[in-house]
Amino acid sequence: MFLSIIFLILSSSASSFAAVQDFCVADTSAEGPGGYNCKKPESVTVKDFVFSSGLATPANITSLTKSSFTPASIAQFPGLNGLGVSMARIDMEVDGFFPIHSHPGATEVLLVVSGTVNAGFISSDNGVYSTNLTGGDVFIFPQGLLHFAVNSGDSGVVGYVSFSSERPGLQVLDFSLFGNGLPTDILGQVTFLDAAQIKKLKSVFGGTN
Amino acid sequence: MFLSIIFLILSSSASSFAAVQDFCVADTSAEGPGGYNCKKPESVTVKDFVFSSGLATPANITSLTKSSFTPASIAQFPGLNGLGVSMARIDMEVDGFFPIHSHPGATEVLLVVSGTVNAGFISSDNGVYSTNLTGGDVFIFPQGLLHFAVNSGDSGVVGYVSFSSERPGLQVLDFSLFGNGLPTDILGQVTFLDAAQIKKLKSVFGGTN
Amino acid sequence: MFLSIIFLILSSSASSFAAVQDFCVADTSAEGPGGYNCKKPESVTVKDFVFSSGLATPANITSLTKSSFTPASIAQFPGLNGLGVSMARIDMEVDGFFPIHSHPGATEVLLVVSGTVNAGFISSDNGVYSTNLTGGDVFIFPQGLLHFAVNSGDSGVVGYVSFSSERPGLQVLDFSLFGNGLPTDILGQVTFLDAAQIKKLKSVFGGTN
Amino acid sequence: MFLSIIFLILSSSASSFAAVQDFCVADTSAEGPGGYNCKKPESVTVKDFVFSSGLATPANITSLTKSSFTPASIAQFPGLNGLGVSMARIDMEVDGFFPIHSHPGATEVLLVVSGTVNAGFISSDNGVYSTNLTGGDVFIFPQGLLHFAVNSGDSGVVGYVSFSSERPGLQVLDFSLFGNGLPTDILGQVTFLDAAQIKKLKSVFGGTN
Amino acid sequence: MFLSIIFLILSSSASSFAAVQDFCVADTSAEGPGGYNCKKPESVTVKDFVFSSGLATPANITSLTKSSFTPASIAQFPGLNGLGVSMARIDMEVDGFFPIHSHPGATEVLLVVSGTVNAGFISSDNGVYSTNLTGGDVFIFPQGLLHFAVNSGDSGVVGYVSFSSERPGLQVLDFSLFGNGLPTDILGQVTFLDAAQIKKLKSVFGGTN
Amino acid sequence: MFLSIIFLILSSSASSFAAVQDFCVADTSAEGPGGYNCKKPESVTVKDFVFSSGLATPANITSLTKSSFTPASIAQFPGLNGLGVSMARIDMEVDGFFPIHSHPGATEVLLVVSGTVNAGFISSDNGVYSTNLTGGDVFIFPQGLLHFAVNSGDSGVVGYVSFSSERPGLQVLDFSLFGNGLPTDILGQVTFLDAAQIKKLKSVFGGTN
Repeated sequence: MFLSIIFLILSSSASSFAAVQDFCVADTSAEGPGGYNCKKPESVTVKDFVFSSGLATPANITSLTKSSFTPASIAQFPGLNGLGVSMARIDMEVDGFFPIHSHPGATEVLLVVSGTVNAGFISSDNGVYSTNLTGGDVFIFPQGLLHFAVNSGDSGVVGYVSFSSERPGLQVLDFSLFGNGLPTDILGQVTFLDAAQIKKLKSVFGGTN
Repeated sequence: MFLSIIFLILSSSASSFAAVQDFCVADTSAEGPGGYNCKKPESVTVKDFVFSSGLATPANITSLTKSSFTPASIAQFPGLNGLGVSMARIDMEVDGFFPIHSHPGATEVLLVVSGTVNAGFISSDNGVYSTNLTGGDVFIFPQGLLHFAVNSGDSGVVGYVSFSSERPGLQVLDFSLFGNGLPTDILGQVTFLDAAQIKKLKSVFGGTN
Repeated sequence: MFLSIIFLILSSSASSFAAVQDFCVADTSAEGPGGYNCKKPESVTVKDFVFSSGLATPANITSLTKSSFTPASIAQFPGLNGLGVSMARIDMEVDGFFPIHSHPGATEVLLVVSGTVNAGFISSDNGVYSTNLTGGDVFIFPQGLLHFAVNSGDSGVVGYVSFSSERPGLQVLDFSLFGNGLPTDILGQVTFLDAAQIKKLKSVFGGTN
Repeated sequence: MFLSIIFLILSSSASSFAAVQDFCVADTSAEGPGGYNCKKPESVTVKDFVFSSGLATPANITSLTKSSFTPASIAQFPGLNGLGVSMARIDMEVDGFFPIHSHPGATEVLLVVSGTVNAGFISSDNGVYSTNLTGGDVFIFPQGLLHFAVNSGDSGVVGYVSFSSERPGLQVLDFSLFGNGLPTDILGQVTFLDAAQIKKLKSVFGGTN
Repeated sequence: MFLSIIFLILSSSASSFAAVQDFCVADTSAEGPGGYNCKKPESVTVKDFVFSSGLATPANITSLTKSSFTPASIAQFPGLNGLGVSMARIDMEVDGFFPIHSHPGATEVLLVVSGTVNAGFISSDNGVYSTNLTGGDVFIFPQGLLHFAVNSGDSGVVGYVSFSSERPGLQVLDFSLFGNGLPTDILGQVTFLDAAQIKKLKSVFGGTN
Repeated sequence: MFLSIIFLILSSSASSFAAVQDFCVADTSAEGPGGYNCKKPESVTVKDFVFSSGLATPANITSLTKSSFTPASIAQFPGLNGLGVSMARIDMEVDGFFPIHSHPGATEVLLVVSGTVNAGFISSDNGVYSTNLTGGDVFIFPQGLLHFAVNSGDSGVVGYVSFSSERPGLQVLDFSLFGNGLPTDILGQVTFLDAAQIKKLKSVFGGTN
């Protein structure tokens, strides 16, 4: 009886101090530079912190690259909002690869679980940092740098990646260049690529003009 | 010939601009609030970005908890310095678990690869957010909050975690309380634990006084 | 007359540049990862920057701990929103103390004004950093680490604390463990505490299961 | 035909990952500590990234200072929201100058394009760092420090400045002291200025009391 | 015996993970943009976290202002390095005051313990936010803005302040203007102050030229 | 005489508080994740804050692109260390351009001073945001995104750019792909470019393998 009263006093003091959230589950109806608005604390449940079966199976394998990227970033997992980290699963079939791309907003760390991968990135001074990775190896792709990964073995590859942001962003080079309406003449000028090459790849990646 | 000259001019201009590093591989001989000093760029090689076989096999299983934690954080992987992300592998045997702990410096994201896990954290307003996870599920432990994970199935558990920092820090509650010389009387007062309980656990975790 | 015209020109140019707020008084109806939305500038007055009598008197003393914590953080003082600092007053009667706890979101600096305090924190490598403080001493509790303070003298203690965030968060260990519905068997497993000890403390701190 | 299907698969996977914005054009109807809310991505166009003719011509020259400041900061250019940089144009006629002021929220870098400028700032230890600049010289005014610029030549000055924030803020000393209702007696006390001096300048800068 | 072995295994695994410091006590022999280098962990003791008697008594009262400022910032308290917070004590005799000044690197929160204070700051749009404070009142001076405090009662004032940085910086207006060699003619131009006024104050604050 | 004594007291108190630097001029002998170490305060002079004639004249025009980039970033201007901003000058002759590139570490703001420019960037969802700019127009290239600028008029172009970092980094696409030893077969696979195209461009940009 006495202890219950103590509890009530102590408890109310603690909770007034703790009124601020330890997390900010995304309410995607509004967004600022630092992320989405927070869901009201009273409607947050444990389900907001679970991405159920999110990385259990690979996303559809893309025929062109024989690979799939299965993200658990802010778009799929609103509980990550403002927390500065996200994950993804990667799968490559035999001969599969991830074409050269960059993440403007995050460093990526790759863990190869099975298979063999030739992974690399290119630095600001045009150095190539590439190597072969096998199961259990971990590799770093620093923020914003072009990088790639190729299945260099004779079996499938499964890996997991971590990003230093819940919204890493993505620029797949071929889609950036050949998957939109950037005119062939300007694109040729600023990439030094031949017009025939550009047109060939625009037809693959859906570009126009 | 003409092109070579062009190349030299363009190249030297680009590299003077790019003299700054895209990364800061740790030179652990000096450290500031933001991390270790950077290794000289000219001595950085691709090996600095590989943690070879780092997560290939679990660290030794601890008998007491039937679990092991295998980190790829700054202490093991100096290439992560300043990049704001790290990873680890977790393994739990049947009946294994990770005792309650917190990471003062990072949010943790847990991916369960195989097995079944009862994972949970406690918020500032003393709410328990816990749930059962199976293969492919991803869960969030927000920065600085006490959390735990228990193998709740009848097979081993393998998982990978991502941290929002290359130096997440770690406070395992029992080691913090019972693994040092904090005197039993003070510890009893500030935890409300009985002296007998404290002494019993000090003998397990190596504490004195 | 001439000067008035000059004034108008200069003034309008200055104010168009200064349209952005120097502060962001909380409008608690919406919140993002970095804090609450800002009150409209035109409705901000000097009252938004005053927490009137906020730390004049201690909050109610809790019988269990013979201490009180009187915060001036974001929940009490909306003018602090986004400014990265807050304060609080602490009071301990004779034999009073603050049970072991952590602030997931802030470093705390304690100034003892009167009385004698045994204060300490525990580091990630399980070191105990504790000492006796008297009036005028200042002590640091680094972010996210478990810490405590005990009145070690024979008179009352008054002190003031500063936090490196307007929302430091709070995990009082006993409330986190024993003040909610975390089941006794799981709690026993992840803390190594005996079931009898857990049940005893659940009855004190309001826990169930 | 085959490639089109591939394209659709690859494309939809890429865009789900890229659902997060690379930018956050200001929707000024709501604001948090980190900046304004973001305009909905679907209504963002290239126009949001252009400040058309923004720095083409100087703002009106102020007779009192024979100078003009033409900003391209968040208030004028909403596309800068959250991006951490802004620009401005400065013009000084012969005998023109910028009175002593500070930017609470940004470091300023000044490029003198034409003319001769005596620029300086004062450090926390009251050191004066001042020098003469001519066309092509670049100068730094570190964040929050009082600084000034005077046309020290016999022709007009044109320059451009960069700020380390899209909202640098501005405190022009004379407006801060003499352009509001701060009472003369208090102002005299806290500045050590004579009352006559204060009243004279209040009449210039629009102050009262 | 069995438990001791367990302890060793568990302990060594924990400490390899915890090798990174939770704090970075300043080694002032080297400094980067984020703060001083860290003292080696093995030489850190609890004394590094205590500023013994640091705020017990006021610093010498300055005759000119009848006030004293007693800081516990990075220069006095190296344990604060990198932790983002510091404190100070302020004292004002009857008729004492703190002349107008700003902190380029921190927001300041003032707690008045005893006495009556007229405190105020000036915003970027030249608004004056000032008010009278008495014991227990808390007030905010946002980062980088000019502010002042005047003893407006008939007894001494004691207060404590918190800063949102361990190195707030300081620009006392009169020292910035009149305590160095900034030439009278330039100073007159950029402040609109009369030469006689400037010379009078240069003689008080130690300025030359 | 009396005032001198006052001055000494006030001054010494102020300078102990101001012992921390307002800036951190680079001492390039050591570097951490946040930038270079700071030059000792006593050896800093106003020259450290001046990049003399740095942007007065364009760097050598590159024949291949008929353009030149003249940076005032950390490598050229050590005073910028830690201050979060830098500038550059750009020049394009008739038919000149800047090939597609990205800055991993900074947003870029472009001010066109004279001439006509077709500038554009590509977003994470492969949208092209491009437009024509003329004198006085300001344009934004958000951090990490591929962008380009082409002289679209019939006269030379002069412009100035601001970066949101003193070390923006740089990836010129053609140098990244064709200016190093990345093997043609791997490069072909991860870019979808034809081997002939790759070899042609490797010969231009100095690549091997």
